[in-house]
Amino acid sequence: MTRTNGSHAPSDHSAEGERLYQEVARGIAQAIDGGALQPGQKVPSVRRLSAQKEVSVSTVLQAYRALENDGYIEARPQSGYFVRRRAPAPPEPEAPRESCAGATDISTGALVAQVLRSTGDPHLLNLSVAVPGRELLPTRAIERAMSLALRCHAGHSASYDMPPGCEALRVEIARRSMESGCALAPDDILLTSGATEAMNLCLRAVAGPGDTIALESPTYFGSLQVLESLGLRALELPTHPREGLSLEALEHALEHHAIAACLLMPTLSNPLGSTMPDARKKQLVEMLWARQIPLIEDDTYGDLSFAPARSRTAKSFDTSGNVLLCSSFSKTLGPGLRVGWVAAGRFRQDVEWLKMTSSMATASLPPLAVAEFLRGGGYDHYLRRTRRLYAAQLSSLAAAVARHFPDGTRLTRPNGGFLLWAELPERVDTLALFFEALGQGISIAPGRLFSARDKYGHCLRLSAGLVWNDAIERAVQTLGRLAKKQLETKEKP
Amino acid sequence: MTRTNGSHAPSDHSAEGERLYQEVARGIAQAIDGGALQPGQKVPSVRRLSAQKEVSVSTVLQAYRALENDGYIEARPQSGYFVRRRAPAPPEPEAPRESCAGATDISTGALVAQVLRSTGDPHLLNLSVAVPGRELLPTRAIERAMSLALRCHAGHSASYDMPPGCEALRVEIARRSMESGCALAPDDILLTSGATEAMNLCLRAVAGPGDTIALESPTYFGSLQVLESLGLRALELPTHPREGLSLEALEHALEHHAIAACLLMPTLSNPLGSTMPDARKKQLVEMLWARQIPLIEDDTYGDLSFAPARSRTAKSFDTSGNVLLCSSFSKTLGPGLRVGWVAAGRFRQDVEWLKMTSSMATASLPPLAVAEFLRGGGYDHYLRRTRRLYAAQLSSLAAAVARHFPDGTRLTRPNGGFLLWAELPERVDTLALFFEALGQGISIAPGRLFSARDKYGHCLRLSAGLVWNDAIERAVQTLGRLAKKQLETKEKP
Repeated sequence: MTRTNGSHAPSDHSAEGERLYQEVARGIAQAIDGGALQPGQKVPSVRRLSAQKEVSVSTVLQAYRALENDGYIEARPQSGYFVRRRAPAPPEPEAPRESCAGATDISTGALVAQVLRSTGDPHLLNLSVAVPGRELLPTRAIERAMSLALRCHAGHSASYDMPPGCEALRVEIARRSMESGCALAPDDILLTSGATEAMNLCLRAVAGPGDTIALESPTYFGSLQVLESLGLRALELPTHPREGLSLEALEHALEHHAIAACLLMPTLSNPLGSTMPDARKKQLVEMLWARQIPLIEDDTYGDLSFAPARSRTAKSFDTSGNVLLCSSFSKTLGPGLRVGWVAAGRFRQDVEWLKMTSSMATASLPPLAVAEFLRGGGYDHYLRRTRRLYAAQLSSLAAAVARHFPDGTRLTRPNGGFLLWAELPERVDTLALFFEALGQGISIAPGRLFSARDKYGHCLRLSAGLVWNDAIERAVQTLGRLAKKQLETKEKP
Repeated sequence: MTRTNGSHAPSDHSAEGERLYQEVARGIAQAIDGGALQPGQKVPSVRRLSAQKEVSVSTVLQAYRALENDGYIEARPQSGYFVRRRAPAPPEPEAPRESCAGATDISTGALVAQVLRSTGDPHLLNLSVAVPGRELLPTRAIERAMSLALRCHAGHSASYDMPPGCEALRVEIARRSMESGCALAPDDILLTSGATEAMNLCLRAVAGPGDTIALESPTYFGSLQVLESLGLRALELPTHPREGLSLEALEHALEHHAIAACLLMPTLSNPLGSTMPDARKKQLVEMLWARQIPLIEDDTYGDLSFAPARSRTAKSFDTSGNVLLCSSFSKTLGPGLRVGWVAAGRFRQDVEWLKMTSSMATASLPPLAVAEFLRGGGYDHYLRRTRRLYAAQLSSLAAAVARHFPDGTRLTRPNGGFLLWAELPERVDTLALFFEALGQGISIAPGRLFSARDKYGHCLRLSAGLVWNDAIERAVQTLGRLAKKQLETKEKP
């Protein structure tokens, strides 16, 4: 929770001080996590804890400040520190009732481009784009690793890092794959320019123009864009807001449609944040292999699960090489690195060849830096801290939505990542709301982006990727006000 | 020719010394370039020149070492320094006689992959891959620029460098475009992950699977691979070894075939090194615009022209936005940077959207470093030196081919870049030669890679990208011996 890195060879005094305040903070955090201290309850006063633990007042203050940063507690003027209150959460979206409709051509590209362009203003409060705030990325550490890699790998710029790419990084990725239940070898892995390239190459390896790809619904608009750019059709399948893709709907779709491949996010889907239970992931893999339909698994958010153990990937149930697992470090180490990867199973050679003809190789330095960072153990430390921060930020965002959005709003409760999906009353038009909010300096992701079927016109995705602050609270308030105004205006006639 | 950079605030003494030896070196170089000193002739002895110019012996020695590095002179044991002898060059390949045949599907991908894989061994003497040797790239300077960019742009890794990408670099590219007769604005330019991505995106913007693309013949095997990966067909057009694409053949092809686009290298084509005269570039652009057939211009080698002024791009004659100009810094600053770009004219928005769906963005740091390097003026200094080195290396390689290859060998005389194309007697099988040479630790690029029509089986491409040394001389000797052996074996029965 609190940094122990970055203090090489400290004096005994400061190392001891650091150890002490971290111990104090850990004790309080455990009391909160375990329920001994309840939301809204006052934590021990600084003086009392100082006496009780036999540490200095400044040590306790330091511990409380760390807990505040980590979203555990909040200071109230004149009153002391309190466990952050979780407002009564809005109800979750209901499970989908409809079965899947037919495949559709996709033509949301222009709308997506318009929305993304309009959110490029750095002065906007950006709740639309799924990018972590700068404070939430280990940017200094990763840029230090780049600097180190520059010194240790002089001459790296003079040659292509030919596919499959930087071996040191593939070794680290393979090592980490154990945590998600896989046993990838370095040679199973191909480095790409982010998960977008990985997804693009996989789709090209398994399908051609006019083919149909099955997806969750709602689904990440970036996936729809890639499909559109490749002339692929989308078959959107009903997806449970918590448990992910409906296998019953998939079964039905497999019987009635010619599906070339599935492109799914079984763990922490974007935008719903749903995660399929392990048993259903296994079933999914078996269902698709029985029909030899490849599964492209986008695991971009997998490392950000709040569960004590990281969720297994569908790939971990794959015994036939039928799953193409894509991921990246964009959401955890920095999107500007463009370091993604794919373990493409039985399509490995095809994907590698497509990588060469698409961009030849990946820039040499960033993978070396990421390998350095992973090897140093900094990644796990960072993930532990960040998961807690995102949990707190999601909770703050959900509480603000509960306070300000119109009655009847439903909201997901993702167990990881930093995205919320809100279903507003059906009469709210979130595309109109998007433009209204833009006028107020706020950007959101309107629901229509997440389907090729003109659906989710009353939904929106909010990102809790920014460190929580009053400006976000006010922005949510503004969004709620604008939505309520839409409802009032529509009631009048 | 000799470095003046890299010596910030030198002492008066060393700055004066540097000025002196450069002046001496420049005088000799001018005498050679101007013909006052002929190849094979002895240059003045060190003592004599020292007395004549009233400079120290060590200054003259320094000047001669610089001239040796630059390929002007060579030391002969016990005898002194001599102007490098240019062996009588082999005749050039003849102008193509055939007209173009029909479009073909491409299936050289597997062969190319096999050849490239087998050249991955760092112990091979690599004459196959068109990558400059490490000593010929300004690697230290560019990696210093990366280090500087890391310090000056802290936090760059935390956000996407969204298309069109790093403005500072686009400004520099636009500024430089004047030299090739263009007047690009920064907003005309989109940064890509190398020219390969640029080419891939352009082809996808202007053509779809099954469409026919017209190319030079022989043509860069990478272009054929990209076509193959996109399901495009190739129409290979006769190309003059010096003057480039036959416009007459193109005219004929336009009348008899449905051509979706042309993908050409009008300046310093790979592998021929041909450059179309300006008037023919203009005519090409007009012919294609009259039919609204887009021209994708690959200018990867354009900056390496030996002509006093850089050749104009076809793009410089484009008034309608019909030319999509692609280039990169892979051959001049380092392939591991993956910094390429495209000015896609009337297809700009389409190409930008395809970039986003293909890899979202380009890694943030390398473009910042390249911008830094270009802004500092280091690029022009480097180009001047490198062009001279390549000219000398090409000349050494051509001389070695003249000495060792079988009679009847023809060889291109490119006016830039670092590639030679050799036509051996027709009975030589260069694919067999490729494998035989591999057994001797030498890699070459067999001619068959450069066509989808099973042509050029007796040709090969050699790279003069490595600094000339005895090992290369011996390798060329070995290649010649192997080729002669093939001829003898074939004569026997």
